[in-house]
Amino acid sequence: METEKYQVLPEEPLRLPKGFLAGGLHCGLKKTERHDLGAIVCEVPAVSAAVYTTNLFQAAPLTVTRDSLSAGEGLRAVIVNSGNANACTGKQGLDDARKMRESFAEALQISAQQVAVSSTGVIGELMPMEKVMSGIERLPAVLNRDGGEDFCQSILTTDLVKKTASVIVTIDGQPVMITGVAKGSGMIHPNMATMLGFITTDAVISEPGLHALLKEMTDATFNMITVDGDTSTNDMVLAMASGQAEHLPLHEHHPDWLAFKQAFAYVAEVLAKAIARDGEGATKLVEVTVSGAPSTEAARAIAKTIMGSSLVKTALFGADANWGRIIACVGRAGVVVATEQVDIRLGEFSVLEKSRPVPFDDEAATEYLKTADTVTIEVDLHDGEYASKAWGCDLTYEYVRINAAYRT
Amino acid sequence: METEKYQVLPEEPLRLPKGFLAGGLHCGLKKTERHDLGAIVCEVPAVSAAVYTTNLFQAAPLTVTRDSLSAGEGLRAVIVNSGNANACTGKQGLDDARKMRESFAEALQISAQQVAVSSTGVIGELMPMEKVMSGIERLPAVLNRDGGEDFCQSILTTDLVKKTASVIVTIDGQPVMITGVAKGSGMIHPNMATMLGFITTDAVISEPGLHALLKEMTDATFNMITVDGDTSTNDMVLAMASGQAEHLPLHEHHPDWLAFKQAFAYVAEVLAKAIARDGEGATKLVEVTVSGAPSTEAARAIAKTIMGSSLVKTALFGADANWGRIIACVGRAGVVVATEQVDIRLGEFSVLEKSRPVPFDDEAATEYLKTADTVTIEVDLHDGEYASKAWGCDLTYEYVRINAAYRT
Repeated sequence: METEKYQVLPEEPLRLPKGFLAGGLHCGLKKTERHDLGAIVCEVPAVSAAVYTTNLFQAAPLTVTRDSLSAGEGLRAVIVNSGNANACTGKQGLDDARKMRESFAEALQISAQQVAVSSTGVIGELMPMEKVMSGIERLPAVLNRDGGEDFCQSILTTDLVKKTASVIVTIDGQPVMITGVAKGSGMIHPNMATMLGFITTDAVISEPGLHALLKEMTDATFNMITVDGDTSTNDMVLAMASGQAEHLPLHEHHPDWLAFKQAFAYVAEVLAKAIARDGEGATKLVEVTVSGAPSTEAARAIAKTIMGSSLVKTALFGADANWGRIIACVGRAGVVVATEQVDIRLGEFSVLEKSRPVPFDDEAATEYLKTADTVTIEVDLHDGEYASKAWGCDLTYEYVRINAAYRT
Repeated sequence: METEKYQVLPEEPLRLPKGFLAGGLHCGLKKTERHDLGAIVCEVPAVSAAVYTTNLFQAAPLTVTRDSLSAGEGLRAVIVNSGNANACTGKQGLDDARKMRESFAEALQISAQQVAVSSTGVIGELMPMEKVMSGIERLPAVLNRDGGEDFCQSILTTDLVKKTASVIVTIDGQPVMITGVAKGSGMIHPNMATMLGFITTDAVISEPGLHALLKEMTDATFNMITVDGDTSTNDMVLAMASGQAEHLPLHEHHPDWLAFKQAFAYVAEVLAKAIARDGEGATKLVEVTVSGAPSTEAARAIAKTIMGSSLVKTALFGADANWGRIIACVGRAGVVVATEQVDIRLGEFSVLEKSRPVPFDDEAATEYLKTADTVTIEVDLHDGEYASKAWGCDLTYEYVRINAAYRT
């Protein structure tokens, strides 16, 4: 095991990398007095990259953000609202997202294409632009170096907890900070679990380098969580690098590249796991590890199939060491693997070896599943050298209650 | 709409096509005194075809059945047990399945490869062969023309109701019967929803013709139902034709081919819908119709994605006319469709037109979702000429309870 070359910072107070300000306020999109509009702003054009939902129906803000990034000027700001997703809102929705971008750019006296826009909340309802515009007017005044916490609050919907991660990694002997903020799967009228992630750093890095890193890390973390298998119209992860740390530009051959990559991966993984743990109705975090796979793609497909199975998820809620449901997922993941040599472990309990059940202490296993804060499922295919992890949660009465509740 | 050319027979008493006998008995695989071993037997070698689960981990009986069918002698019998799936049981399991085949063949004085074997129940436990063998000894004596009902009972696990369908269709002026029996998604220790279907007919048809028809009908019916997205190790649908009806052999150019096909489709669809309606914890049957698709595959992928969505299924349990979750499924089904012209109807309620929400009577829609015995979701993509249906059920507290219950 390699030593980790980064230092994890405390969650509170949330620190921002050099060059960044943040803040949030209540403009009236949420019914209660909670923050619903926030922004991260960079003092200089930040090298920026984003990944988006694969859903064909993409919300208006995603179109606007793509347009801003395509200008290649570097982002100076991202503005985010919660309470309304601005999805399935047609031409008016697109006009509204553009207006949010332009008004915030004007307020900051920067160009419109230096602003990204992100929304989460109700879909199919037009954005109440009067409220939003009044919020945008007030927003610049609340931005500051300690505003990460307020920003954090402003992007939450029915998330039970805020999700942040922050680390310092040493590059060329200089401290470089990476700070991430995310929101997860809260129930939204008319209900959609949307995942948003914002990662800032003061590292010096090129746009292609940042984009490749973000894509690679998203595939291994944010794209490996599942709460219920549904994919939102608004999902987006945005990375911004201010370049204000004092080191030589990062690239694949930089001696500290691996350290930076590990630190970035840590931030992405903490956020992804926090989203999974806070899944609707969840009582526990579940981590599935598939190893011995013939390819990374195979390992990922199987890990996600296990983590997405309602039968596996209800068994975990019921503390049932049900390996039958797990092996059935391995077999239906759409990946060809050797069927005679699969090992399965639940926590410390080996339950299947070479695809055959082995005796285990059922009572102790049940106790483990009942009490563990994080349940681990390990599947070794003995059919290659690749591995992957997926994260999710159990399927509970509370999930059904939350999602079956009448819209009111 | 074409007129249906078949006559639906009453469910009780279940009639068998000419040439078939059936029966069932209790041999001790189930703890209570319910039937757990049954058979369908044909007086002559029946033209036979089967389709199997796509799960990589296939139970031993499937291997044995494939072997029998590959001999091409025509099946004289299928023996089915419930209570033990004989899956993940290794070489011993395969030996046991073979022994079931050979012993039953011996009891009937036919060749082993004229017998198919099918099992459903617990996985990972060896078949209690002493009980099974005593049952096989007694089985021939209980077979008779009215034994369909007993057979039906013998294949159920925790199904709440039996699933049958029977029709008469006229071919060359002669009555031809098609009778189907199925079992669905019952909870089995350690829990797996297995689907089994057995369709018998006295039609005169070739093996390739029967196989092609079974495959086509299974793709449109049994393969279009989803209870929780999991695929069992034991799923199988078997068709047997005794050829004892008096008509010219059926083939694609026979003037009554379409009538036969419709009648066969009816039987398969009734069984598939019965399985969906009896899904674990279900309170209602849900029928999703996707039309205006660029291909059948696209229509099927979208229909199955909608029907498989936990968010859609919980909304239906909660009587929530939540079109947002439906459109999100259309967008993540892995199929490229035009995103600006999607219509969605829930029952009689138009909720989305050209991908935009339209006002509807929310209270009346909720009332419909609450009270309808079968809820229909119609999605028109306006992007082609193909259509497909999928069936399933809602996701309820009871589903979680059934599947989270400790194995005891």
